[in-house]
Amino acid sequence: MLKELPLSKVYKLIEPGPVVLLTTHGERGPNVMTMSWHMMVDFTPPLIACIVSSDDFSFTALRSTGECTIAIPAAALAGKVVKVGNCSGRDIDKFSAFGLTPLPAATIKAPLISECFANLECRVADTGMVSRYGLFILEVVKAWIDPGQTDPKTMHHRGYGSFAVDGKIIHVESRIP
Amino acid sequence: MLKELPLSKVYKLIEPGPVVLLTTHGERGPNVMTMSWHMMVDFTPPLIACIVSSDDFSFTALRSTGECTIAIPAAALAGKVVKVGNCSGRDIDKFSAFGLTPLPAATIKAPLISECFANLECRVADTGMVSRYGLFILEVVKAWIDPGQTDPKTMHHRGYGSFAVDGKIIHVESRIP
Repeated sequence: MLKELPLSKVYKLIEPGPVVLLTTHGERGPNVMTMSWHMMVDFTPPLIACIVSSDDFSFTALRSTGECTIAIPAAALAGKVVKVGNCSGRDIDKFSAFGLTPLPAATIKAPLISECFANLECRVADTGMVSRYGLFILEVVKAWIDPGQTDPKTMHHRGYGSFAVDGKIIHVESRIP
Repeated sequence: MLKELPLSKVYKLIEPGPVVLLTTHGERGPNVMTMSWHMMVDFTPPLIACIVSSDDFSFTALRSTGECTIAIPAAALAGKVVKVGNCSGRDIDKFSAFGLTPLPAATIKAPLISECFANLECRVADTGMVSRYGLFILEVVKAWIDPGQTDPKTMHHRGYGSFAVDGKIIHVESRIP
């Protein structure tokens, strides 16, 4: 059962740079891609920039519907995350092929992913750099976490399927969010 | 002694989402800030997007000179990284205050940081989203690594001085860079 997360806490999920899954719902139905090129742009409402290439099958759906979900997988999903990234929704239904469970989102048609510990429902807020760089500015309109996944370890892609998995957590006194 | 890194490998450093230091050289000399809002935009030449707020003292120097260095610290520098982020170059010389050693860059005036395991000399390539979001598109023009720092563990900021430090490295067969 997913629990709503305050939008003011979304940056804590994206700022650390985890590999994520991005879902869309285009003319041929739901699709999912793997993505590591994203960053926070503003805290509240949370704005996220990401790169989706016009070569990606998801590009057309994202551009035409203006909606997507960013789903964050824990390290146990590494195998599926890489498989999703190594094929195209042009050719297969990745949800059924790799055993990922789409769930209906509250505000958009792009599905959440049940196996992910966090899901962010997003609307495209600015397309000014889409043509030049494939850079979309997204606004997170609703956020969900899975309280059943305690202390999820995220993955940070270093290229060609190598990932640094979260290790120890350190705390240094700081007044900066 | 720093060693030049091929520009085609820069994405392997930025894609995992480490906290970085950003140096500039403005009218009042060199300065450094802490930054976690950045992402890759293209592979070669490497383009990086980042957010530098107009509230940051570095903003004016970055905008007027069009140059900066992105320096990547390993976890041993966590204390200094947070101190740099908790004060402003308006008030102090952070290099001397926190024991960070500026080194001359090859192509720009913004210094490298000797203690960091990687340094990326950057020129601003696109300011189209600076006014609206503080979003700069940077082109990396020269990259350096410190071969003496083997297997550096980077830090991923979760807010208020909490960091996930790189843990184990996992490999999943993948044909995607």
